[in-house]
Amino acid sequence: MRQYTVAVVGATGAVGQTMLNMLEERNFPVGTLVPLASSRSAGRQIGFKDQALTIQEARPEAFDGVDLALFSAGTDISRRLAPEAVKRGAVVVDNSNAFRMEAEVPLVVPEVNPEAVRNHQGLIANPNCSTIQMLVALKPLHDHAQIKRVVVSTYQAVSGTGLEAIAELHDQSQRLLAGEKVEPKVYPYQIAFNVLPHIDTFDDTGYTLEEWKMVRETQKVMGPGIAVTATTVRVPVSYGHSEAVNIETKHKLSPETAREILKSAPGVLVFDDPSHLKYPLPTLAAGRDEVFVGRIREDFSIANGLNLWIVADNVRKGAALNGVQIAELLIQDGLL
Amino acid sequence: MRQYTVAVVGATGAVGQTMLNMLEERNFPVGTLVPLASSRSAGRQIGFKDQALTIQEARPEAFDGVDLALFSAGTDISRRLAPEAVKRGAVVVDNSNAFRMEAEVPLVVPEVNPEAVRNHQGLIANPNCSTIQMLVALKPLHDHAQIKRVVVSTYQAVSGTGLEAIAELHDQSQRLLAGEKVEPKVYPYQIAFNVLPHIDTFDDTGYTLEEWKMVRETQKVMGPGIAVTATTVRVPVSYGHSEAVNIETKHKLSPETAREILKSAPGVLVFDDPSHLKYPLPTLAAGRDEVFVGRIREDFSIANGLNLWIVADNVRKGAALNGVQIAELLIQDGLL
Repeated sequence: MRQYTVAVVGATGAVGQTMLNMLEERNFPVGTLVPLASSRSAGRQIGFKDQALTIQEARPEAFDGVDLALFSAGTDISRRLAPEAVKRGAVVVDNSNAFRMEAEVPLVVPEVNPEAVRNHQGLIANPNCSTIQMLVALKPLHDHAQIKRVVVSTYQAVSGTGLEAIAELHDQSQRLLAGEKVEPKVYPYQIAFNVLPHIDTFDDTGYTLEEWKMVRETQKVMGPGIAVTATTVRVPVSYGHSEAVNIETKHKLSPETAREILKSAPGVLVFDDPSHLKYPLPTLAAGRDEVFVGRIREDFSIANGLNLWIVADNVRKGAALNGVQIAELLIQDGLL
Repeated sequence: MRQYTVAVVGATGAVGQTMLNMLEERNFPVGTLVPLASSRSAGRQIGFKDQALTIQEARPEAFDGVDLALFSAGTDISRRLAPEAVKRGAVVVDNSNAFRMEAEVPLVVPEVNPEAVRNHQGLIANPNCSTIQMLVALKPLHDHAQIKRVVVSTYQAVSGTGLEAIAELHDQSQRLLAGEKVEPKVYPYQIAFNVLPHIDTFDDTGYTLEEWKMVRETQKVMGPGIAVTATTVRVPVSYGHSEAVNIETKHKLSPETAREILKSAPGVLVFDDPSHLKYPLPTLAAGRDEVFVGRIREDFSIANGLNLWIVADNVRKGAALNGVQIAELLIQDGLL
C-alpha cells in the first residue's frame, strides 16, 4: 500500500497534537511525517509512533515533496502557506476559517457530504468545530424530514481556543479558589466560574463570526434551504462542546423515529435515556470519536419541532479527527 | 408607619440568607423577625440588622402572630407549612414550586404582573428563578410586539441548588486541579469543568420539571398565547443564571426598538455594546438587582425574530429579591 509524506502544520497546538495521535491511532499510511510550526517551536522534538521528530519552521519550502498537508495553525498561516503547499503539489486539508466559504473549496464532513471531495482543486476545508458535530447529528434527520430551521445555543470548551486557554481556565480556577484576583489574558473576561457569550469577533449585525460560521457552513454543507440562527457561548469546560439544538422540520419527525434514524447514523452515538440519567456530557464525550446525541424530545411549541442535546470532543471530531477522515476519504476515492 | 412581624422559612439557606439581607438593605418595615429552619438548625444564631436572633424550628405554631411569611425551604416544607401559616393569619410569599400553578394562587413578578397580587387568598407564589429573569426582559417586548414563541437555552448557576452545591463545585474544582478523582454528591455527575443538561426531575416527555416550569409559568404570568420550549442546563458558575433567548413576534421588532423599550423597562439594565466588549456576564450580574440584557440582534432565520442574552443573579432577582418585592407590593396596595 502506498505511503504518504504528511505535513502537520501547527504540530505543537491542541489540534495538531491530536492530529498526530489520530494519524497514529488510525494507522494512516504515513511514510514520512513532517511536523511544522512557528519559528518559535522549530527545533523542538516531538514523538510520532516510535520516532522522535524535529519540528521544522512552517515556510513555503517545507512543503517540497509533501503529499498531504494538514493545517491547523490559524487563519493567517493558512492564508499565507496553504497556497504554497498546493503549488508544490500537496493536497491541503485546512482546519482554519480561511477558505471555507470559497466556492471552489469543498467544505467536508465525511459522514455528511463525502461526495464533495471529488471536485477538490488541492484544498479541502474542515468546517468549524461547533458546525461539524451539529451536522453529523442533523444530516440523517434532514434526509428523512427536511429541516427548515435550526435555533442553536452552544456551550463551548476552552480547548477550542488552544492549549493556552486550558492553562488559563485552570490557573484562574486555582487562584479564585484561593481567594486571589485574576487577570484575564486569553479571553477578555474571567472564564473560570463564568460563561462568555463571545467567540471570535463581532460584526455590525451584533453576531460573532463563530455564530455566522454555524449559519453559513451549515448552508454550504447541507444546502441553502436551511435557516439557522445561533448563539455561541464559551463555558469553563476543558474538552467537549455541547449544543442545545432546536429544529423545525417540513415533515413530522417523532422523537422515536429520530432516535431510530440516529442509531444507524455514521459517527453518532445515541445516548438518550434520561430517566436512567443517560444524557450526553462533555466529560463523557472527551477523548471519544462519536458525536453523542440525547435529550431528544418533541418541541410542543410548534407543529413539527424537535429538541436535541449534542455533545462531541471539539478537538477530535470537531477538528483533528474530521481532518484525518477527509484525508482517508481522499485515499479511498483515489484523490490523493 | 406600621411594622410587620416577618418569618423567613429556610433562614439558613442560600435564598433565606439573601432574603434577610434584602429585608435589611431595602429597609423593609420589619418589627419582629422570626427566622425559621429545620430542627437541625434550630438554636443557631443569625444576625439581622444589629440583633442576634435565634433560629426556631419551622412548625405550625411558629407562625402564631406572624404577618408575613417568606418561604424558601423547598417544596415539601412549603406544602406542609404554608397552609398552616395562612390559617394563622399570615400572608405567605412562597419561593417553591408547591403552589405556583394552582388557579387561586397569584404567580407574580412585580415588574410584569403586579395587578395579580390583588386577588390573593393568603398565598402568593414566586416564579422559578430562570422564568423570573426571562419575563422581566420579555414582558415589555411582548407589550409592544406580541411574542408568539420563545426558544430558550439556559446556563444556570449552582447556587440555584443551594449552598451545598456551591461547596461541591469548589471542592470538585480543587480536587480535579490537584489531579484527584471526585465523587459527585449533590448532582448525579461531576459539575466542575462540565455542563449538565439536567435540572430537577425528568418526566415521560423527556423534559425536566425545570423546563416545564419555564413553559407553564411564562404562560400563567404573560398569557396562554405564548408558546415556549426550553432546554435547562447547569453550568459550573456560582452565582448568575444566563439565558440564550430566541423570540418570534407577531409584529416586527427591530433590535434598536427592542433596546429603546428595554432601556425604560423596570428592573432591566440594557448592557449591549459588543464591539466594546459590553455584554452581560454572570460575574457582572452577581450581587446586582437588575436583569442584564444584551446581545440583542435580529434573528435572520425568520421574518420577525430576535435573539437576546439575559443574565441575572438567580438568588437575588431570581428568588429573594422578587419575594421581598412582592411583599412591598402587598404593603403598597394595602393587601398585607
